[in-house]
Amino acid sequence: MTERFSFSLLATDGKARLGVISTPRGEIRTPAFMPVGTAGTVKAMMPESVRATGADILLGNTYHLMLRPTAERIDRLGGLHRFMNWDRPILTDSGGFQVMSLSDLRKLTEDGVTFRSHVDGSRHFLGPERSMEIQRLLGSDIVMCFDECPALPADEARVAESMRLSMRWAARSRDAFGDRPGHALFGIQQGGVTHDLRAESAEALRAIGFDGYALGGLAVGEGQEAMFGVLDFAPDMLPADRPRYLMGVGKPDDIVGAVRRGVDMMDCVLPSRSGRTGQAFTRRGVVNIKNARHQDDPRPLDEACTCPACRNYSRAYLHHVFRAKEIISSMLLTWHNLRYFQDIMQGMREAIAAGEFAAWQAGFEAARAEGDIEPL
Amino acid sequence: MTERFSFSLLATDGKARLGVISTPRGEIRTPAFMPVGTAGTVKAMMPESVRATGADILLGNTYHLMLRPTAERIDRLGGLHRFMNWDRPILTDSGGFQVMSLSDLRKLTEDGVTFRSHVDGSRHFLGPERSMEIQRLLGSDIVMCFDECPALPADEARVAESMRLSMRWAARSRDAFGDRPGHALFGIQQGGVTHDLRAESAEALRAIGFDGYALGGLAVGEGQEAMFGVLDFAPDMLPADRPRYLMGVGKPDDIVGAVRRGVDMMDCVLPSRSGRTGQAFTRRGVVNIKNARHQDDPRPLDEACTCPACRNYSRAYLHHVFRAKEIISSMLLTWHNLRYFQDIMQGMREAIAAGEFAAWQAGFEAARAEGDIEPL
Repeated sequence: MTERFSFSLLATDGKARLGVISTPRGEIRTPAFMPVGTAGTVKAMMPESVRATGADILLGNTYHLMLRPTAERIDRLGGLHRFMNWDRPILTDSGGFQVMSLSDLRKLTEDGVTFRSHVDGSRHFLGPERSMEIQRLLGSDIVMCFDECPALPADEARVAESMRLSMRWAARSRDAFGDRPGHALFGIQQGGVTHDLRAESAEALRAIGFDGYALGGLAVGEGQEAMFGVLDFAPDMLPADRPRYLMGVGKPDDIVGAVRRGVDMMDCVLPSRSGRTGQAFTRRGVVNIKNARHQDDPRPLDEACTCPACRNYSRAYLHHVFRAKEIISSMLLTWHNLRYFQDIMQGMREAIAAGEFAAWQAGFEAARAEGDIEPL
Repeated sequence: MTERFSFSLLATDGKARLGVISTPRGEIRTPAFMPVGTAGTVKAMMPESVRATGADILLGNTYHLMLRPTAERIDRLGGLHRFMNWDRPILTDSGGFQVMSLSDLRKLTEDGVTFRSHVDGSRHFLGPERSMEIQRLLGSDIVMCFDECPALPADEARVAESMRLSMRWAARSRDAFGDRPGHALFGIQQGGVTHDLRAESAEALRAIGFDGYALGGLAVGEGQEAMFGVLDFAPDMLPADRPRYLMGVGKPDDIVGAVRRGVDMMDCVLPSRSGRTGQAFTRRGVVNIKNARHQDDPRPLDEACTCPACRNYSRAYLHHVFRAKEIISSMLLTWHNLRYFQDIMQGMREAIAAGEFAAWQAGFEAARAEGDIEPL
C-alpha cells in the first residue's frame, strides 16, 4: 500500500474522468460518492454495511465532531477511524459551511468565526488554523481548507468579497496544514455562478498549490440548471492531474451531470436522510414507501438491486415498518439508497472505461423516464 | 429435517433441564431465550444479526400484527416468516395479554374481548377462535392458547375466576387449532401465586393435552421472590416430557433462577428495549452508557463479549452515539444485550450437560457481585 496520497487518471470519455486516488488507508475509485458520517456514524448503518454498499471513503463533519464528542477526545481515543470503526479513508469538511448554516449567533471576522453551539449554546471559535488542528486531531485523510460560502442567489459583490476572504483563508490553511505525508489538503474554489470570480479563485488556489480541488458554493439553492452552467466551465479551471470534488451533491441526476462535466468526487446526506423519511431512490425514479399503494405489494423496491432491502423484503414490508416507525425501516432504506448511489458510480466508472458514457447516461435517463412500476 | 414438532430432554441437573425442540423450521436448543419481534422486527436489528446472536426462535405479537399490517395481509404476502425474513421458528402469543395491557375500552365476556386499537381507535374482537385463526394466518410454528391474565397482586377470587375462564378458553383454543402437523399449540397455566389454583389449572390443561405448557400470569408485578416462590412448585405440575415456557421473563437473574427451577423457554423485550435506552447487560451487571464516566473510556463494554459493540467500539463511542441520539446506539446496544442473553443460555446449556449448573450459577452471581469495572 502506498505511503503517499496520489491521483491517477485512468481514462476519459468526453469530460468524464475515470481515476483512482491512492492513500495509505486504501484506494478510492473515482468518480466516487462519499456517504456522510456526520457525527461519527453514517446514520442507521454499521460501517461494515457502508463498506458493503461499495463506499471507498466516508465524510466526517468537523463542526459536529468538534462540538461533540470534541476533536481532542477523539484524538485521545486514537482518532476518528478507530473511534467509528472505519479503517478506510475519511475526508473531513472544514466546519466553515456548517458553522454558517447550523450554529447560533455567528460573528465573522478576518480571523474566523465565533459562534454558539446548536447542541448546548457553548461559545466556540473556528478559523483556518483551528480547523486544520481539528482535522489533524480527527486523523482525517483528506482535509478541506477553511472557507466561507454565501447562500445563493447572492449579490455579486458579496460573493466576490466572500471568495477573496476564502482565498486568504486557503493560504492560511495551507500554511497551518504543513507537510503531512499520506494526508491531503484540498483547496476550495468559490465565486458563485460568475465565470470571472471562479477563474480568479482557481488562479489563487493554483498559486498556493493543493493535493486536490473542490468546487464549493454550489448546491446551495441555485438550482440544477445554474449549477450545471457553472460546471460547464469551472472544473476546467482546475488542474487536470488532481481530483476535483463537488461538495454536497446531490440527487442521482445531479451526480451524473457533474461526472459528465469532469467531477471526480461528491458527497451528500441525501441517500441516508431520505432513507429515514421513507424515500427510496431506484433505477425508475423516487419511490415514497409510505404511499398506500405499496401496502400489499409483494415485489422488491428495485428488482435490479442486490441490497438486503431489495433481496429479502417486499415493498409491503418496507411500507409496514415505515408506518410502524420501526428502526429497521431507516436501516433498510438507507442501505438501499447508499447501494443505489454506489451502483450509479460503478456504472459510470465502467462506462467511462469502455468509452460509453453517453450511452450509459441515455439508459440511466430512459429508466427514470419510465417511472415506477405499475401498481398491482 | 423433521416433519413434526417434538421435544427431547437430553439431560437434567437438579431441576434444570437441557433439551431440544425439533420443528420443520429448525431446532430450538433449550433452555432457550426468545427475542421479541413485536411488529415484524426485533427493533433495531436485522434478522440475520438476531440469528448471529445465537437465537433459534423469535416471538411475534398477535395483538400488534393483527392491527398492523393485519394477519390477512401477512397471509397474502406469504406468512410472517417470509414477511420479516426469518426462516426459523416463530412463536406467537395469543394477543390476550397485550389486549388487556395496551388497548383502549376493553370489554371482556365469556366469548372474548372487544377493544379499540391503540394505533387508530378502530374496533376489534379477539377470542380463542379468532386468535387461533390469526396465528394460523401468520404461519406461527408455536401457537399460544388465548388466555386472560390479571395483573398481580390481585384478589384470589378474581385470580381463580380468571384462571377458570382461561381454562375454558384453552379447550376452545385446542378445538379451533385442530390438527396441524409441524405446528404446536401450547396451553398456559394460570392461577397467580396460589398453589391450589396452579394445580387446578395444570390439571385442566393436562386433561386437554398440549404440545407444550406455558407458565402464565407471572412477571406481572409480583416481584422476583414471589415469582420464584411459584416456580418452586408450578413447573413440576406440568408434564416432564413437554417444554415449559415462562412468559415475559426477564432480567438475567430471573432467567437463571427460572432455568434452575425447570423452565425451558423464555421471552422478554428487556434486552432490546434496554438497548434503546442506553442500558447494557454485562457479566458484571448493568451499565448505563449515558453516564459521563464512560465518555473517555477506551475499553469495551464487556471484555468477555464477542458482539460487534464489544469487539469494535469503546465505551466512549457508545456513550457518544447514545448522547447524540444516533440510531447506531440502539443497533449496537441491542445487539450486545441479545448476545449477552444468548451467552447466558449457552452457558447454562453447557453447565447442565456437564452437571455443573450450581457452579456455573455461582460464577454468574460472583461476576455480577463484582460490579462494573472501575472508572479509569
